[in-house]
Amino acid sequence: MQERGVNLSEIAKVVYDLQLPYNPTLQINECLESVEAVLKKREVQHAVITGIAIDILAEKKQLPEPFQTIMEVDEPLYGIDEILALSITNVYGTIGLTSFGYLDKEKMGIIRGLNNHGKEVHVFLDDLIAGIAAAASARIAHAHPDESRYQD
Amino acid sequence: MQERGVNLSEIAKVVYDLQLPYNPTLQINECLESVEAVLKKREVQHAVITGIAIDILAEKKQLPEPFQTIMEVDEPLYGIDEILALSITNVYGTIGLTSFGYLDKEKMGIIRGLNNHGKEVHVFLDDLIAGIAAAASARIAHAHPDESRYQD
Amino acid sequence: MQERGVNLSEIAKVVYDLQLPYNPTLQINECLESVEAVLKKREVQHAVITGIAIDILAEKKQLPEPFQTIMEVDEPLYGIDEILALSITNVYGTIGLTSFGYLDKEKMGIIRGLNNHGKEVHVFLDDLIAGIAAAASARIAHAHPDESRYQD
Amino acid sequence: MQERGVNLSEIAKVVYDLQLPYNPTLQINECLESVEAVLKKREVQHAVITGIAIDILAEKKQLPEPFQTIMEVDEPLYGIDEILALSITNVYGTIGLTSFGYLDKEKMGIIRGLNNHGKEVHVFLDDLIAGIAAAASARIAHAHPDESRYQD
Repeated sequence: MQERGVNLSEIAKVVYDLQLPYNPTLQINECLESVEAVLKKREVQHAVITGIAIDILAEKKQLPEPFQTIMEVDEPLYGIDEILALSITNVYGTIGLTSFGYLDKEKMGIIRGLNNHGKEVHVFLDDLIAGIAAAASARIAHAHPDESRYQD
Repeated sequence: MQERGVNLSEIAKVVYDLQLPYNPTLQINECLESVEAVLKKREVQHAVITGIAIDILAEKKQLPEPFQTIMEVDEPLYGIDEILALSITNVYGTIGLTSFGYLDKEKMGIIRGLNNHGKEVHVFLDDLIAGIAAAASARIAHAHPDESRYQD
Repeated sequence: MQERGVNLSEIAKVVYDLQLPYNPTLQINECLESVEAVLKKREVQHAVITGIAIDILAEKKQLPEPFQTIMEVDEPLYGIDEILALSITNVYGTIGLTSFGYLDKEKMGIIRGLNNHGKEVHVFLDDLIAGIAAAASARIAHAHPDESRYQD
Repeated sequence: MQERGVNLSEIAKVVYDLQLPYNPTLQINECLESVEAVLKKREVQHAVITGIAIDILAEKKQLPEPFQTIMEVDEPLYGIDEILALSITNVYGTIGLTSFGYLDKEKMGIIRGLNNHGKEVHVFLDDLIAGIAAAASARIAHAHPDESRYQD
């Protein structure tokens, strides 16, 4: 992911902004640790590997048609990127789902930067990052059941 | 649902606010029609029937423990309400997922009113409505592929 | 679950039968331990609590209509029981999905016994058990990546 | 899909075998029509296009590593193929899930043929077909609620 311009500490910052309202003593280090824990899951790695591969191949214009065109125009009714991201979010249960939808709509931090791309194709990458941030956020909520009481 | 204080036109208003930015000529009538189409699906009806039944039984304190307590305190890590809502949202594909997460976090319109409840238990109802609004919104996006090009 | 006539060792037996072809040195104890690990997950507990509560209330004829009738006739197009079970199966990723569908269709062991019920209502319980067995099976597959190479 | 050696009538045959026990007057034509209806859904087309593109690129050894290797060895813990297939199955609700898991395990008909491949890579294709057959089967069950009463 680093080759695609993504820094884990930027994802940690998204998690921090997301969870701070429910957990005022939260530290950015705990967020980074949570992002790293999410990325150690095999299921998450498979989703990331698959999504980034498709982005790269789209940039190189090596996808068969009509897939290449769907990726280039970022066809809005194409939902496979969200399906992959959802499989990441679900790793810590459905409570991450709300955060994922919110991030996907609000395009916070690093995610906004990726979505407004030039030559590069980030159809999958921005959703994958939203999925990882949502999962890391859910993991923190599970670890602090009392603070998260105010979350829903 | 009307017995639970929900008016379909209020759900249609949520759909309208959600879709207007991508579809400037959208009419509220089209939103209402879309909400009604979603509610005709058998899968949606089953989710609504199940969720509202649990809310009602929780109000009557007729659920077995520990379920009754989970519902009364609106336990934030309880995610079955979101799972049910998700089964509604998915009826028109994964593109509704983003809207659902956004609605669940922002608590727009009718949904906010339900969430801030007094004696009544609306643990499931607010998520069900968010799910219906997200599905109805996805249905409109599918019907207007060009307008929704600006959606993602 | 024990009050509903379910013995964890019977679920472990289903897991054992499911995984043995891919893992010839598998012990029944490892299966039991895996079932117990699945049941410690909060998300799993919430699904089990919710599903069993609905079964119990259906037996006592305390569900509001039309939900009571749907449960009594075991309406075949009602899929909320499978949705809940799926949230259990997903705890160890999507590889459990195949096992769940297979168990649901084949009704192996304890699951068959529950499905053929008399007075008792087990609409949710049989699917919950299939979900737990599928998740416990996926957990074993993750722990033995080499053996499971032949699994797909 | 035809270029990948898949004939729609073979998928229809899988649907027929799956549904016949619950629907003794079922005709193969109705199954074929149901398969075609599933394939007209945009969400289904996107999943098929994405999965087949990955299979083709894997055959051409054009995927970035480690994705190429994962595909070549058909890594059993890789579950993205099932996630895509599930998004197809869900188009007609969760009742298709059981059929999908069953097909994926039993490898009926055309699906078995694809799974035992030589040079060709069908990691995604076999799951996509199982997903389509399961969705087409669920569509028939929804159209015949009485016959399917004996289904669950």
